[in-house]
Amino acid sequence: MSDTDSPIISIRPDPEREQRKGVPEVIFGEAKETGQIISMARGLLAGSGRAIISLVRTEAVEALRAAFQEDTVCIREAARMVVIYRPGYVRRSTGGHVGVISAGTSDIPMAEEAALIAEEMGCRVTCIYDVGVAGLHRLMEPLRNLLDDGVDAIVVAAGMDGALPSVVAGLVPVPVIGLPTSIGYGIGGRGVAALLSMLQTCAPGLSVVNIDNGVGAGITAALIANRVAQARTPFQETER
Amino acid sequence: MSDTDSPIISIRPDPEREQRKGVPEVIFGEAKETGQIISMARGLLAGSGRAIISLVRTEAVEALRAAFQEDTVCIREAARMVVIYRPGYVRRSTGGHVGVISAGTSDIPMAEEAALIAEEMGCRVTCIYDVGVAGLHRLMEPLRNLLDDGVDAIVVAAGMDGALPSVVAGLVPVPVIGLPTSIGYGIGGRGVAALLSMLQTCAPGLSVVNIDNGVGAGITAALIANRVAQARTPFQETER
Amino acid sequence: MSDTDSPIISIRPDPEREQRKGVPEVIFGEAKETGQIISMARGLLAGSGRAIISLVRTEAVEALRAAFQEDTVCIREAARMVVIYRPGYVRRSTGGHVGVISAGTSDIPMAEEAALIAEEMGCRVTCIYDVGVAGLHRLMEPLRNLLDDGVDAIVVAAGMDGALPSVVAGLVPVPVIGLPTSIGYGIGGRGVAALLSMLQTCAPGLSVVNIDNGVGAGITAALIANRVAQARTPFQETER
Amino acid sequence: MSDTDSPIISIRPDPEREQRKGVPEVIFGEAKETGQIISMARGLLAGSGRAIISLVRTEAVEALRAAFQEDTVCIREAARMVVIYRPGYVRRSTGGHVGVISAGTSDIPMAEEAALIAEEMGCRVTCIYDVGVAGLHRLMEPLRNLLDDGVDAIVVAAGMDGALPSVVAGLVPVPVIGLPTSIGYGIGGRGVAALLSMLQTCAPGLSVVNIDNGVGAGITAALIANRVAQARTPFQETER
Amino acid sequence: MSDTDSPIISIRPDPEREQRKGVPEVIFGEAKETGQIISMARGLLAGSGRAIISLVRTEAVEALRAAFQEDTVCIREAARMVVIYRPGYVRRSTGGHVGVISAGTSDIPMAEEAALIAEEMGCRVTCIYDVGVAGLHRLMEPLRNLLDDGVDAIVVAAGMDGALPSVVAGLVPVPVIGLPTSIGYGIGGRGVAALLSMLQTCAPGLSVVNIDNGVGAGITAALIANRVAQARTPFQETER
Amino acid sequence: MSDTDSPIISIRPDPEREQRKGVPEVIFGEAKETGQIISMARGLLAGSGRAIISLVRTEAVEALRAAFQEDTVCIREAARMVVIYRPGYVRRSTGGHVGVISAGTSDIPMAEEAALIAEEMGCRVTCIYDVGVAGLHRLMEPLRNLLDDGVDAIVVAAGMDGALPSVVAGLVPVPVIGLPTSIGYGIGGRGVAALLSMLQTCAPGLSVVNIDNGVGAGITAALIANRVAQARTPFQETER
Amino acid sequence: MSDTDSPIISIRPDPEREQRKGVPEVIFGEAKETGQIISMARGLLAGSGRAIISLVRTEAVEALRAAFQEDTVCIREAARMVVIYRPGYVRRSTGGHVGVISAGTSDIPMAEEAALIAEEMGCRVTCIYDVGVAGLHRLMEPLRNLLDDGVDAIVVAAGMDGALPSVVAGLVPVPVIGLPTSIGYGIGGRGVAALLSMLQTCAPGLSVVNIDNGVGAGITAALIANRVAQARTPFQETER
Amino acid sequence: MSDTDSPIISIRPDPEREQRKGVPEVIFGEAKETGQIISMARGLLAGSGRAIISLVRTEAVEALRAAFQEDTVCIREAARMVVIYRPGYVRRSTGGHVGVISAGTSDIPMAEEAALIAEEMGCRVTCIYDVGVAGLHRLMEPLRNLLDDGVDAIVVAAGMDGALPSVVAGLVPVPVIGLPTSIGYGIGGRGVAALLSMLQTCAPGLSVVNIDNGVGAGITAALIANRVAQARTPFQETER
Repeated sequence: MSDTDSPIISIRPDPEREQRKGVPEVIFGEAKETGQIISMARGLLAGSGRAIISLVRTEAVEALRAAFQEDTVCIREAARMVVIYRPGYVRRSTGGHVGVISAGTSDIPMAEEAALIAEEMGCRVTCIYDVGVAGLHRLMEPLRNLLDDGVDAIVVAAGMDGALPSVVAGLVPVPVIGLPTSIGYGIGGRGVAALLSMLQTCAPGLSVVNIDNGVGAGITAALIANRVAQARTPFQETER
Repeated sequence: MSDTDSPIISIRPDPEREQRKGVPEVIFGEAKETGQIISMARGLLAGSGRAIISLVRTEAVEALRAAFQEDTVCIREAARMVVIYRPGYVRRSTGGHVGVISAGTSDIPMAEEAALIAEEMGCRVTCIYDVGVAGLHRLMEPLRNLLDDGVDAIVVAAGMDGALPSVVAGLVPVPVIGLPTSIGYGIGGRGVAALLSMLQTCAPGLSVVNIDNGVGAGITAALIANRVAQARTPFQETER
Repeated sequence: MSDTDSPIISIRPDPEREQRKGVPEVIFGEAKETGQIISMARGLLAGSGRAIISLVRTEAVEALRAAFQEDTVCIREAARMVVIYRPGYVRRSTGGHVGVISAGTSDIPMAEEAALIAEEMGCRVTCIYDVGVAGLHRLMEPLRNLLDDGVDAIVVAAGMDGALPSVVAGLVPVPVIGLPTSIGYGIGGRGVAALLSMLQTCAPGLSVVNIDNGVGAGITAALIANRVAQARTPFQETER
Repeated sequence: MSDTDSPIISIRPDPEREQRKGVPEVIFGEAKETGQIISMARGLLAGSGRAIISLVRTEAVEALRAAFQEDTVCIREAARMVVIYRPGYVRRSTGGHVGVISAGTSDIPMAEEAALIAEEMGCRVTCIYDVGVAGLHRLMEPLRNLLDDGVDAIVVAAGMDGALPSVVAGLVPVPVIGLPTSIGYGIGGRGVAALLSMLQTCAPGLSVVNIDNGVGAGITAALIANRVAQARTPFQETER
Repeated sequence: MSDTDSPIISIRPDPEREQRKGVPEVIFGEAKETGQIISMARGLLAGSGRAIISLVRTEAVEALRAAFQEDTVCIREAARMVVIYRPGYVRRSTGGHVGVISAGTSDIPMAEEAALIAEEMGCRVTCIYDVGVAGLHRLMEPLRNLLDDGVDAIVVAAGMDGALPSVVAGLVPVPVIGLPTSIGYGIGGRGVAALLSMLQTCAPGLSVVNIDNGVGAGITAALIANRVAQARTPFQETER
Repeated sequence: MSDTDSPIISIRPDPEREQRKGVPEVIFGEAKETGQIISMARGLLAGSGRAIISLVRTEAVEALRAAFQEDTVCIREAARMVVIYRPGYVRRSTGGHVGVISAGTSDIPMAEEAALIAEEMGCRVTCIYDVGVAGLHRLMEPLRNLLDDGVDAIVVAAGMDGALPSVVAGLVPVPVIGLPTSIGYGIGGRGVAALLSMLQTCAPGLSVVNIDNGVGAGITAALIANRVAQARTPFQETER
Repeated sequence: MSDTDSPIISIRPDPEREQRKGVPEVIFGEAKETGQIISMARGLLAGSGRAIISLVRTEAVEALRAAFQEDTVCIREAARMVVIYRPGYVRRSTGGHVGVISAGTSDIPMAEEAALIAEEMGCRVTCIYDVGVAGLHRLMEPLRNLLDDGVDAIVVAAGMDGALPSVVAGLVPVPVIGLPTSIGYGIGGRGVAALLSMLQTCAPGLSVVNIDNGVGAGITAALIANRVAQARTPFQETER
Repeated sequence: MSDTDSPIISIRPDPEREQRKGVPEVIFGEAKETGQIISMARGLLAGSGRAIISLVRTEAVEALRAAFQEDTVCIREAARMVVIYRPGYVRRSTGGHVGVISAGTSDIPMAEEAALIAEEMGCRVTCIYDVGVAGLHRLMEPLRNLLDDGVDAIVVAAGMDGALPSVVAGLVPVPVIGLPTSIGYGIGGRGVAALLSMLQTCAPGLSVVNIDNGVGAGITAALIANRVAQARTPFQETER
């Protein structure tokens, strides 16, 4: 008996996806060994000149630095993410504008994930963090500035009671993506109450992603913003 | 075989409860036959001079009117409740002040239940209805008036996302009782998301009752208000 | 005791919401009495010249026709919706383009809800219905046409296993809104499996709304499409 | 790419909350690094002269002692809490009286959390611990003493079957706050059965907080007691 | 195609079960048509001289009376059960003694089911009904009498918070069978909180059956009582 | 506004599916109007000469008889199914052999669904009904006969505790398909306990379908049996 | 601030419980520190001459041996329990007979818990382990021997599908206590499917305890057996 | 007290099962100590000449090599399995053909479990790995080759949204066994959404096993394939 007992046909990852979808592949680093991450990152660098790794364990960071000494290794600690660029890689700038709002301090890592991926998809990103529901009146001014600055889509990260996305969606005329986070305890904990509350919203224009899926929320917001940006300046279309 | 086969010892309802707890008995009319409701109401009228019936089916109302022609039968349709008073019954007035706020139109019946029971426990009640989360800024003024008017406790009824009680509890210095209502659909529907969201609140001073338990929320608020009122004017203590 | 025992402060619906959000109010007809629907529709007609009612019970349709004889009453049976226009009302046309796809015959009513609300928000809508997962290869051509026709956002309605939205989101470069429907039985029934499966998607750019929330899915898609359209033809901006 | 890629607007914690709500901020120590706790505690000490930290890990205690050598550092092991006072800080005494009852030995830490926060809010606190449901008859005397001593609100902590709060609420004329604890195993474990049982109570005047939320239960009880106390001795009003 | 397409082998009910187990078969009448009930009852009468039907719908009662005019048809309305005896049938008397306690009025039908089946299994049954948790002190005397009267096993029926079985099991030295009833609403409703609370009990000697399974609770209690009775008067052994 | 507002592209049902998969289409009659059922049946008759309708409501049967007077309309009441054949339709006979076992009387309708669809797919079907877990010893002989008769796959339908499929799968060397039925009450009711218990089985060779999915269980069993039969008599291969 | 800030009234454990209930106290060792276990064991030894500790962590065993060198320390590894006897302690022997059956090897620790506590309550215990559902026919003989040997009650421990207790209860005329164990994986894992399946049983005379509650199952079985035994030899009554 | 206090009757594993069922016993290595695994493997080697161990911890592998130096120890890392053969053991070859498909990289270990057990049951196995739902069009060719190569049954492993098995079952005319894997996060995570989605499938011929039960899926597929193979070449029948 050996691994070659059964013939194995491997359907390789889709090389044209980034081009077709306009969305970069992301390596989820959490459950992978460092060696595996490095090997996958090499593949992405060879293909597109950039590798994005999320949920990076602390111990993997130094190994990544060592492995990619000739590339630019950017660490974004707050987002638990690393991005590696081939020398000469130029990140496109689409002109899309994404807002990212977080309810509490503990929601910041997931909010930062969304912010980073939106940046890597070429968007301008504005973050407004640590907005308690009790402090709603103080949210009004930064929110108004955000709208005046032409934001195209807003990600709102919240755990616990998950009330903030509904409140924001009730106030703004752009699509809001609710990002429930796994903050919470007891019954409805680990983000379940937050997710359910967002799905039950009365506010129009709020759609949601799964708990802690900051990458997914950022991608959706950036897809919206980039489509708007493309409409704004149609000559950029050829870049994609 | 007959019903008398087994000796049955019936432990009768506690006659001193209302006196001991300061809380009237309430007949839940929903699953009871009209005859049974009338018979239980007779018992309460004989004991305390008043009978409170909640969740009254429409068809029972006329039967109650007919059965208690010599008493005062008050129908509070919005609360689905009926209160019957013996001639000469005087409802005490404690001086406690309870606020009742509802998020949407559909939450009003449960809010009204809370309001009515608090009134029957002697409180003054102020209701603020139909406050959407999107319209929070317009809630500020009535809320400030309520506090200026010395409210002792506030019931906040909300279904769907259940966000309003957290928002109110973040703003006021009095205890808030969250009353989740069975409004909602799909996942987290029938009040589950609302209840979980309230239990996950970050706002201090919010406690909750079960879904649609308007009577329970009103009793808790009135117990608080009455205790405060009693402290205000200690000579009333003998009344209880 | 009477209904006027407690002073009631009613915070009226937000008159500027449609203007502020670009989203019309929708009357949910399911649990309301016909009289109540007519009265609310009168209010909306007076305000904006249009009233949209969803989940209309069959018996309410004739009553609506009778009550609004001087207005145009459009019945969209497949969507269980009615729209009433004041004489002379002109629905704006934004130039946004929304696609609506349904997996099975039973998902059509929810898909139609999304389609109708997007139309009322001024979008052009293309519907592709009755796409089984088994028939995916036959979906490819209409989907390509949709993209070639410049679709801005796509709603995909699916019950049962909820697989279709993931498949579509894996293929298209525009944002996809998953609309789980309450089709399904046994464990994971009533749309729960469909919703969970969409939240677990591996496809980028898929966000979801609650089960059967066709109106919400349509609003989100139209908000996206309208923002893109506005960027395309900036002179329309003044219209909003 | 760096952390400054996106402009971040931080909405700082609400400095007037303690004054507005009469409730001190609490630092939840469980998931925070010691450095972060110390920095947050510094902020609170500067503002109000006092810092309260809950769920303190053992290893953080010595670090806190070392960091705040010029302040008074009080460790309340049973509650897993630490309170730090600036020299000269005087805890106000409101005259409110809170009772805290626990069902079993394992519920004591959560009960102690409630007791400590109530004390810090100026209340007098009486604790009755280790009351099994089987030993109810032996609860009667201390409970009677508590009432005779003018208790204003009672927190009852219970895990497992969660029966004690219902029993107490059936006996006393003051508001009871049920505090379910995460004690329990198998189905309904981690406090779920306790919470559900409290929400289903037949006893009037019982409201609940989420599982293990001792701080929240204590705050609600103290808000009630302080309001009553304020009514008792109205001249203290100026203190707040 | 017809029903005889597939050969069907029917394994008939076990004729020796009642003899082997000492437990009579019970026809669950709820979901069966009257004709089917009558036919099954005929079979049981022919076999053992007795037919027990539970969950009988009102409309089936008259049909049963008409169908079994030559037999004795006993209706026990409170238990929603009917028992039919062949002329000359003599119910055995085992000497076992079962207690049945119910928490509220709504739990009586399930309690009565348990009582009736225990009687039909030959036990003496004593019922104590309508024992609120708040009135526990008044339960003490009848409970002491029950023990003095040599009760062998006790069924305790409770819905809502399900606290009573734990309380009773904490006080008596005989096995207690918890019978959760589908009384309750909101979260943990339909008996779920009651069942979970009983499973989480700290009281020794409490085991449970499923929600509303009065027949099962009664059978278990009677099996215990009959085994004890048999030990008391060993000469009865031949009767079984 | 009219139904033609949005262009609708309808992807019609896959005409080659029956040929490709060897599985007939089934019309689920439960939630469909009679007219819709008739129209869909007409389509299937035109295509394959046969229409199978499951979950037929009683009131639809006569309408079907009336609508298809020139065809053969077979009613299988126990399965709640109707099959209609064009004159001259000849059901193929594959030589596959499927066994169908049910635990209780209430499981028979779902078992019959499985039996009928397997017959329509050309299998010989043997049914063994009403096998209680207590009567397992009496199951042994019919089971041995079934194996001696060359059964290729066995469907076992069970509600309540769902124990029978595990027991059967522990005894036979052919694949077993567990069919949980929605029989059951209280916690784990409506087939949930039965399904979970089957998924937790220790017996090898048991796979399951969703609750009440008799059609699906029958199709899987027939697919297996037909593949075996085809291997037995390879010349039939051309028939497919 | 110190621990003595609040007066603490501690209601000590009930010294007469063992005498009143005939059930020894058990120290749950799992979450307790060794020192705490030793101190509690000292208390029990002083009171009754015996201390029973369940769920003992391996590292606590040596400490217990060291601490109680003058007592008899019995370790029952398979049950994860330790029993300590004062010199001269004589365990009573009631004459009750309890059977304990386990479905798989992994269920043995919980089964052993039940066996040990029944022994400590004075019963004779017979264990039958490792009975797969597939091997049911081989269970028949030991089961018959158990009944011939006059067993009074049987505990059946099972995880996974939880089918064994139903099967046993279908065969024996004595009460069966189902003991679900936390063996199982995926959906319905950790004993949930086993518990639900037991609650849904069709077999008469089966009641259940919570998952892994071996001590509780053993106590219930022993209470039954001891009551029977007492009836057999009434002169022992004085011993209790 | 000692372990021999209670007589223990151990019902030994069924020696004829492999012969009766055609399914080898598998030792689940995850929760067992290395010594226990070695001892059980010895038993199986003595009986059948082969021992299969699944879920082997890394640290156990070397111990197994050391303990069985005279046997052939095959390690299949990807499947986390070890198979040990007595010298001269010849694995039978049935001629059955099983396909194993996995959706993502993380599903491979469970897919490999299925593949290995099918091989050990004598089947030829073809694996197709890493098939994203987005890459469905690229699945078509290998799937067609698989069918042309006469595959008898297909296992499809998928976590996350669990969509792949439905898609495959919609395309192929052989039975498909859905194998949900514990890949997934947030709500519906750990394989729950995948399992529910498979149970809700619209595709005919799909049955499922519990989450991560690769061994069970492989056994079911091999039982089907072996039965087909036996029909193909009936002279092999004597081998079994």
